[in-house]
Amino acid sequence: MCRMLGYAGPPIALERIVTRPRHSLLEQAQHADEAKLAVNGDGFGMAWYADGVDEPGVYRDVMPAWSDSNLTSLCRVIHSGLFLAHVRAGTTGGTSRANCHPFSHGRWSFCHNGQLGDFGARRRVLEGLLPDDLFARRQGATDSELLFLLMIANGLNRDAPTAIAETLAMIGQGQAPDRITCVMSDGARILGFRHASDGRAPTLYVSRGTLDHGGRALASEPLDGVPANWIAVPENTLVTLAGGVPALSALDLPAALTAPTDRSPRQVSPN
Amino acid sequence: MCRMLGYAGPPIALERIVTRPRHSLLEQAQHADEAKLAVNGDGFGMAWYADGVDEPGVYRDVMPAWSDSNLTSLCRVIHSGLFLAHVRAGTTGGTSRANCHPFSHGRWSFCHNGQLGDFGARRRVLEGLLPDDLFARRQGATDSELLFLLMIANGLNRDAPTAIAETLAMIGQGQAPDRITCVMSDGARILGFRHASDGRAPTLYVSRGTLDHGGRALASEPLDGVPANWIAVPENTLVTLAGGVPALSALDLPAALTAPTDRSPRQVSPN
Amino acid sequence: MCRMLGYAGPPIALERIVTRPRHSLLEQAQHADEAKLAVNGDGFGMAWYADGVDEPGVYRDVMPAWSDSNLTSLCRVIHSGLFLAHVRAGTTGGTSRANCHPFSHGRWSFCHNGQLGDFGARRRVLEGLLPDDLFARRQGATDSELLFLLMIANGLNRDAPTAIAETLAMIGQGQAPDRITCVMSDGARILGFRHASDGRAPTLYVSRGTLDHGGRALASEPLDGVPANWIAVPENTLVTLAGGVPALSALDLPAALTAPTDRSPRQVSPN
Amino acid sequence: MCRMLGYAGPPIALERIVTRPRHSLLEQAQHADEAKLAVNGDGFGMAWYADGVDEPGVYRDVMPAWSDSNLTSLCRVIHSGLFLAHVRAGTTGGTSRANCHPFSHGRWSFCHNGQLGDFGARRRVLEGLLPDDLFARRQGATDSELLFLLMIANGLNRDAPTAIAETLAMIGQGQAPDRITCVMSDGARILGFRHASDGRAPTLYVSRGTLDHGGRALASEPLDGVPANWIAVPENTLVTLAGGVPALSALDLPAALTAPTDRSPRQVSPN
Repeated sequence: MCRMLGYAGPPIALERIVTRPRHSLLEQAQHADEAKLAVNGDGFGMAWYADGVDEPGVYRDVMPAWSDSNLTSLCRVIHSGLFLAHVRAGTTGGTSRANCHPFSHGRWSFCHNGQLGDFGARRRVLEGLLPDDLFARRQGATDSELLFLLMIANGLNRDAPTAIAETLAMIGQGQAPDRITCVMSDGARILGFRHASDGRAPTLYVSRGTLDHGGRALASEPLDGVPANWIAVPENTLVTLAGGVPALSALDLPAALTAPTDRSPRQVSPN
Repeated sequence: MCRMLGYAGPPIALERIVTRPRHSLLEQAQHADEAKLAVNGDGFGMAWYADGVDEPGVYRDVMPAWSDSNLTSLCRVIHSGLFLAHVRAGTTGGTSRANCHPFSHGRWSFCHNGQLGDFGARRRVLEGLLPDDLFARRQGATDSELLFLLMIANGLNRDAPTAIAETLAMIGQGQAPDRITCVMSDGARILGFRHASDGRAPTLYVSRGTLDHGGRALASEPLDGVPANWIAVPENTLVTLAGGVPALSALDLPAALTAPTDRSPRQVSPN
Repeated sequence: MCRMLGYAGPPIALERIVTRPRHSLLEQAQHADEAKLAVNGDGFGMAWYADGVDEPGVYRDVMPAWSDSNLTSLCRVIHSGLFLAHVRAGTTGGTSRANCHPFSHGRWSFCHNGQLGDFGARRRVLEGLLPDDLFARRQGATDSELLFLLMIANGLNRDAPTAIAETLAMIGQGQAPDRITCVMSDGARILGFRHASDGRAPTLYVSRGTLDHGGRALASEPLDGVPANWIAVPENTLVTLAGGVPALSALDLPAALTAPTDRSPRQVSPN
Repeated sequence: MCRMLGYAGPPIALERIVTRPRHSLLEQAQHADEAKLAVNGDGFGMAWYADGVDEPGVYRDVMPAWSDSNLTSLCRVIHSGLFLAHVRAGTTGGTSRANCHPFSHGRWSFCHNGQLGDFGARRRVLEGLLPDDLFARRQGATDSELLFLLMIANGLNRDAPTAIAETLAMIGQGQAPDRITCVMSDGARILGFRHASDGRAPTLYVSRGTLDHGGRALASEPLDGVPANWIAVPENTLVTLAGGVPALSALDLPAALTAPTDRSPRQVSPN
C-alpha cells in the first residue's frame, strides 16, 4: 500500500508538505496509520510543475525516502504551486526506477495506489489494449504505468473524466479485486479518484479548507492528522483541485462497475 | 535498532536462516517484534566463511533487504557453516555501503547493534585512540566500525575476551547511554556480548539446543519465534559458539562499568 | 557494446578470470580494445553454478563493475567450475537490474552482446511470439531478455542448437541490422555463437588450449591479450565448451539468414 | 581525473550547459579529451542557487551521469543563474554519495579536481587541523571534502582569497605531488583556481566572452570545443566570475609553494 499526495496553491517549497509536517508523506512512509503494510520503503517519487517549462520535473528513486539526501535538498530548494509525491510499497513489478511513481507523459504526471487483481494473468491482454506508440513508451512492468498509458490512449488530454471512466470500463475485472486510487495532474489542476470492484479502494482525502500556506491537497491520509479538516473522497467520484474549492463529480461508469459492492458514502459537501 | 545473527554448524544454504524461516532476519526487517523502530530498511549485509578462503566473503548494500534480488539468489546458492547477517536501521553515519555491517578486517567480521551515546561529540577523541594503520582503514562514519577497529587494535586476534573488555573500558562513557550488542567471527567461532551503561543493551539470544538443521545461532530475536528454545544473553557476558554447546563467561570489566545499572539476570544455564 | 565471458574447467575463484588477469573482464570494462564504445559502465552481472544447487547463483547490479566492493568480495570467495560474466553498455532498455545480464530461467543463464535492429518498432511483434507463461516471466525491456525467452520457448532445454536456430529464423530481420553474439549455460556446458544480418556480429573468441588454471573460456576478447591463444568464432557457428576441446558446428539456419553478407572465415581448426 | 564547471549569468536551464552542448559535461564524462582516465563514471553532482533560498540545492549520485534519468529531468526543469556541476572519477575514498562533489556548507558549494599526494598517509594529520565543529561535519573520506572544510575553517566566508591561500600553505606537501584545481561558489559568484606542487594541476578554463546564452563559465575543458574562446587559467591564480568580465588575481602563497616547478604561463588577458 503506497501513500501519495497532490498539492495545488501558492508556490511553496516542496518540503512544506513532503518532508516537514507532523504527518508529512515522509512521516507516513515510516508509520502509515491506515496502510495495510507498515513499511513504504520501495521507492519514492515526485513530479512538479515549474513556470515556463511544459513538462513536469520528475525525480524517482528506489531508495527508501527517509534515507535520501538528494530528496531532502530538492524538497528544500524547489518551489512549486502544483506537484505530486508518492511513496511506494511494491505490489507488482520489481524495485526499479521504471516502476516508481509518478509516471509522466507530456504534461501529465500520474500516481496510483492499489492494484489490479490478478495482474500477472491479465497483463498481456491489458497491454494488448495499448496503441503501438504508447506500448513503445512503456518502460516498466507495473499495472500502474499501464493504467496511466491506457488513460492517455483514451484521451486524457482531451477529456479527462471520460478517459478515466472509459479506461475503468475497458479493463473489466479480474478474478481478484481491482482497487484503484489515483492522483494525477496536467500542469493546470490536480485530479483524483477512487474506484474498486469490491468497495475497498485505498483511501483518499481532500483538504476541506486551505492549508496553513493557503493551498489545498489531495492525500492518502490527512496531512495534519486532523480528520475533521479533510473530506474522505467517496468511490467512483472524481475530485478536481485547481486552487479554489475542490469540485467533486460522479465518474460516468457502467452500472456493472458501481452498483453492488460500493459501500462508501454517496453525499459529500466540500468546504 | 538493527537485527543481526550469527550461525555456526553444518554448512547450510544461507537462506535457511537469513530469508526463509517464519521469523527469519528478513521477516524481522519488516516486523521486528522487539525493535525500537518498526523499520530496518537502511541496509543489509552478511559475511560468510568458505572452505579454502582465508577472509570472509562480504556482501553489503543500502537497499532494504526485502527488495534485493541479489540477496535472494546469494542466500539460495551460498552454503556456509559459519556466517553473520545484519539488517540496519541507521543511527549514526549516513546510508552508504561503508556504513553497513558486517565490517571486516583480515579474518574477522563484525556486527553491532546499539549506539555509543553522544557519538558526534565523542567521535574525534575515540578515533584518536586508533593506531595510524587502522585509522587509515576506516572507511565510514559509524560508531560501529570504530568499535570494531578499536577491538582489532586491542588484540582481537590474540585474545578476544581481553580485547573486548579493554575496548569497553577504553571508550569510557558519554553523557548519553552507551548500548552495545555485538556478534562477530574470526572464521572459527562466533562471539557475542551485550554491554550498556544503563542496563539497556539491545537483546541477544543464543539457541538452547540445535536448530532443525543441526547448527546453533546467536540472534537479536528467537529465530523460530519460540522464546523457550533460546537463552537471553545477560549483559557483560561473552558467548562463544563453535559448533557445540555455547560457552558463556563474564567479561572482565572494571567495576565502574558494570555495577549499578545492570538489571539483567546474572545466572544462566545453557542447554 | 558489451563484454562477456563463459568459463568451464576446474573450479576456480571467479576473480581469476573476472577481476584479476591483465585483460580481465573488469579491465575490459574500462578499456575495451575492440569495443564500439569505450565505456561499459551500465551494469555488471555474473551467473555461476555451485555443487548441489540446481539453479545458478545470479548477481547483477547497475553500478559500474569497477566501483562495486561486493563484486570484488564475491569474486574472491566464490569458486566455480562453470560461470558467465557480463559488463553492460546499454543499447535498449534503461539502466536497471532487470535489464542486466545474465538473465536466468531454471538451470539456464544467458548473456547477449549486440542488438536487434530497430527493436523499438519490432518489440511488440517479437514479444507476441512468447507463450503466456514466458511472457509473464519477462521482467525488463531488453531485446536480450526477449531473445533468451524465445530460445526457452523453442526448446533450449531439449535441443539447444535447434532452439537457437529456430529462434534466429523466427525473429526475421528488422530494417536496421541484427547483430547477435551470445554466451549461455545450462549448468553442464557453455554454449556460444555469433550471428548477424550484415556480417558484423560482435566478436567472440574461444581459448585454443587450456588457460593457466586448466580451464577454457569463451570471451568477447582474448583474456590474456594474446590473439594467438584464441580462435575467433566465425558467424553462424555454435561453440560448445564442456571441459575438453571446444566443439564447433554450423548453426542450421535458412539460407536467407546466412548467405550474402557473411564475411567471416568459414574454416576453423580448434586446438 | 574529474570534470567540472561553474556557470554565472542569466538564469538558464541547467541542461543548456550540463547535458546538451556538443561538449557538455555529460559528453565529457564519456570522452574527456584531456583527462588522464578515459572514464568518469564514479558519480555526478551539481549545486545550484535559487531565488529566495539561502543554501544551494545539491544533487549527487554514484550512478554514472549518463544513465541517470533523474539528472536529465532535473537539468531540464531547474533554471539557475549560478551553479556548479561535477563528474567524478574516484581517486581517494570509495564510491558513495558522501564522496561525490559538490560538497556544501551553508551558502558554499565546492568542487575539486586532482588529489593530495600520499593522502592515505597524510589524512590523519590533515584532519587534525580541523576544528571540532567542522570535523563533526565531515561525512566522507575524500581529500576534496577535507580541503573544503579547511577553507571554511580558514575563513572562506570572510575573505575567500586569503582562506584559500592559507589552506594551501597549511597543508604543506606530501611525498607525492599535490594537484589541486577547484571551482566553488558562495551564491554570489564563482571562484576557481589551480595549484600544484609539480606544475601539473588539472586544467581549468574560463570563457573569454559570453556564451551563447549570455553567461560565462569556468570549466575543465572548453565547453564548445573551441579553445580560442577560452582562457587557460594559470596556476596559482584565482578567477572570480560574477556576471561580468572574469577577474584574475595571483594567490598570495609562500614562495616555497610557487617558485620552481610552475610551468604555466603567467600573463593572461581576459576578454
